[in-house]
Amino acid sequence: MERIPILKMGPFLLVTIQVDLYDRLALNLENDLISMVSKTGARGVLIDISVVSIVDSFMGRILGNIASMSRIMDAETVVVGMQPAVAITLVELGLTLQGVHTALDVEKGMELLHDKIGLGLNSEQEEEGSDDSDE
Amino acid sequence: MERIPILKMGPFLLVTIQVDLYDRLALNLENDLISMVSKTGARGVLIDISVVSIVDSFMGRILGNIASMSRIMDAETVVVGMQPAVAITLVELGLTLQGVHTALDVEKGMELLHDKIGLGLNSEQEEEGSDDSDE
Repeated sequence: MERIPILKMGPFLLVTIQVDLYDRLALNLENDLISMVSKTGARGVLIDISVVSIVDSFMGRILGNIASMSRIMDAETVVVGMQPAVAITLVELGLTLQGVHTALDVEKGMELLHDKIGLGLNSEQEEEGSDDSDE
Repeated sequence: MERIPILKMGPFLLVTIQVDLYDRLALNLENDLISMVSKTGARGVLIDISVVSIVDSFMGRILGNIASMSRIMDAETVVVGMQPAVAITLVELGLTLQGVHTALDVEKGMELLHDKIGLGLNSEQEEEGSDDSDE
């Protein structure tokens, strides 16, 4: 199977990475994701990497690319479910995943996205509209 | 990677199948899913098979097993994103996926689950409580 499925869930897109991202698969994913963001008007992209146990600089760059492309299309990217060992490796490799937000699991990632795009899961949060985009 | 990730989304669990389900992977998935249903008290299981292009009797049985096990644990199972060719193959194989609900995509699957467990995405639907479980 040469494609990674992209699931639309309300205003967000959800991708779970279960296989090693080799060149072509990664390029397909980038293209598919950007087309989906454009087609659906999605405001956020959630990437679940909970079963990814090995991360290298290529994978790091792909995640960074997706985040940069999504941002240009007005969508925020959140990587969720990172294993502790992966976080250790990323830091040891000197990869800081710039522009990529992270959250512990999909639910927390959705909350973060709701906050980011100012929807607010609880209607109380709508009024605040925390503008920390210039950090 | 020997595991398929199971994502918790509110009262539901979401699984996307991206790889061929060979014996061990399928057994792991069944075990993991049932443990997750038990641990999280999930009321529904969504299985996305949108990138599965080939389905055989083994896969059909696995889906049926998951549905039966989930039902015993008081959770409904919905298979979403089935490709037309897969539906054709299933019928030609004589597999009717008994006990498995289907929906076109994840969003429709979630609506169906909300209806099934009587939550109702729109509060209007709560009153109806369509009891077609004895079909």
